Parts: sequence; C-alpha cells; structure tokens
Amino acid sequence: MTLHPQSSQSPLSKERLRLWLKLLKASNAIEDDLRRKLRADYASTLPRFDVMSALSRAPDGLKMSDISKMLKVSNGNITGIVDKLSDEGLAQRVTKPGDRRAHLVCLTQKGKDVFSSHALAHEEWINDMLADLSADDISETTRRLDTLLAALRGSKDD
Amino acid sequence: MTLHPQSSQSPLSKERLRLWLKLLKASNAIEDDLRRKLRADYASTLPRFDVMSALSRAPDGLKMSDISKMLKVSNGNITGIVDKLSDEGLAQRVTKPGDRRAHLVCLTQKGKDVFSSHALAHEEWINDMLADLSADDISETTRRLDTLLAALRGSKDD
Repeated sequence: MTLHPQSSQSPLSKERLRLWLKLLKASNAIEDDLRRKLRADYASTLPRFDVMSALSRAPDGLKMSDISKMLKVSNGNITGIVDKLSDEGLAQRVTKPGDRRAHLVCLTQKGKDVFSSHALAHEEWINDMLADLSADDISETTRRLDTLLAALRGSKDD
Repeated sequence: MTLHPQSSQSPLSKERLRLWLKLLKASNAIEDDLRRKLRADYASTLPRFDVMSALSRAPDGLKMSDISKMLKVSNGNITGIVDKLSDEGLAQRVTKPGDRRAHLVCLTQKGKDVFSSHALAHEEWINDMLADLSADDISETTRRLDTLLAALRGSKDD
C-alpha cells in the first residue's frame, strides 16, 4: 500500500485511530477477564475454550488443520491442546469413515457436558461484565459494530 | 462468582454475548490486518510495535518489568524483543542515574525515527481500513465504546 503522510494528519484519521484504540482496549479488557475467570473457575485457558467451542459445533469431528485454520493458531499448539483434552477423556481422535488415513477430532460425551457448563458460565460472565449496558446501549453498539465490520469487509475488497 | 443458569437464558444475556462476539471479531480482524501489514511492509510484529510504542512514550526509559506489565507479556518475551531492537541499534540499555544496578531501556534516535514512520503507517492503515465509516459512525461508535468501557470498569468495582 502507498502511504500518504499528509492525509494521515487529518482530524478524521486521528478519530479513526482513537476508535480503534478504544475497540482494542475494550476487547482486551473483556478477554483478560475471561482468561482470569477460566483459569480460576475451571483451570482452563482461552485457546482450550476456543478449541472445545469449535469441536462442539462440529458433531462429525474436525481435522487438526481445520481447527488450526478456524482459530488461526499453529497446528503445534492445537496438537498440545487436543492431546491434553484426550488425556482427560474430553476429546478423542476418530478415523474418518472411508479414509483410514484421515483422523478427525471430536468431543466425547463428557467433553460435550464439560463444554456446555463452560459455555454457560462464559455467557454469564459476559452478562455480568456488561450488566450496566441498557437494552438500547446493547442494540446500538451492536448496530455500530455491524457497520464497522461491513466497512472492514469493504476495505478488503479495494 | 455464582452462576445463575436460569438468568443466563434471558434474551438480554444472549444480546450481550452477541455484542461481545462482534467486538472480538472486529478487533481480531483489524489486529490480523495490522499484523500482516507490519510483516509485509516492515518485517516487524505487533509485540515489537507495542514495545517500541511504549518506549517512545517514555523518553527517560523503562524497566523491563515495566514494559512487561504495560503490555501484559512475559518478561522473557520482552527480553527477546529488546535484545533484537538493541542488536539493530533501535534501542539501548542505560544505567539509571543514582542506581547502577537498575537498567532502563530506551529508544535510540534511530529507533525513534523508525518508530515514527511505523506509527504514521499504522495510523494510515487504520484510516484505510475504516475509510468507509462516516464522521457520524466514528463519533457514535466511539461514544458507545466509552459507555461499554465505563460499564466494564463498573463491573470490576462490584
């Protein structure tokens, strides 16, 4: 991309930067809090929660590389998390029907039960963190974020 | 914290969760794009950008532990980044006046110049990514994020 240092000094550019820094601050604050709560209440981590969440939405199982792509985390890290989930009886590797070389990972029944309780707690934590937001705050902020997400998609098509 | 599974099913709780997921999606999308651009244009990384940014705001230098605390990254990772910046002549370790045991890190003049150009590019990238947002979108989204940040602070005081 080409830099335009002169336009970079425009007031709107500064306002966009301020918006991004606030978005990052809010996102980091919530993520840090989730991280702390997962550790304290479930001795778990966000990447582990995300892997279980991805598996819970794929009843037929996922390839390791699919999980890695979905979560944008390296295959090596995913392997470590899946190994640990398997050791604890929460996930298992299964052979893909018709292709004995292809392995899929899925949650066990115990894994599904454990993730259900974590997901419920996760929703409750978010509900507590954002308890001071009114129904109007919630719907308007969501609407503004939709506009922002659409703008981001637009900027990729340029 | 106490879980209230029954309240967790309320529509507002689902809306708060949806808001959080959109916030995370937007934040991740922008961060991923910044990461790509830093790598492509400057062979740099976000943690490295963040360390230089922290140092640029501290002309008298920072202790390694301060940088670590500010960025919520382990001391080990910060050491690696600062070592690399030093090797490239962008940062240096100095002795704290009056306390020869305490070492501070600060940017060299070359480091300040390099960071200035990265910071300018960073602002320009954000300006490009959010170019489709009108002045009203920007000010209203910022205002809503301020409300959200205040709600988060409130939930910590409970």
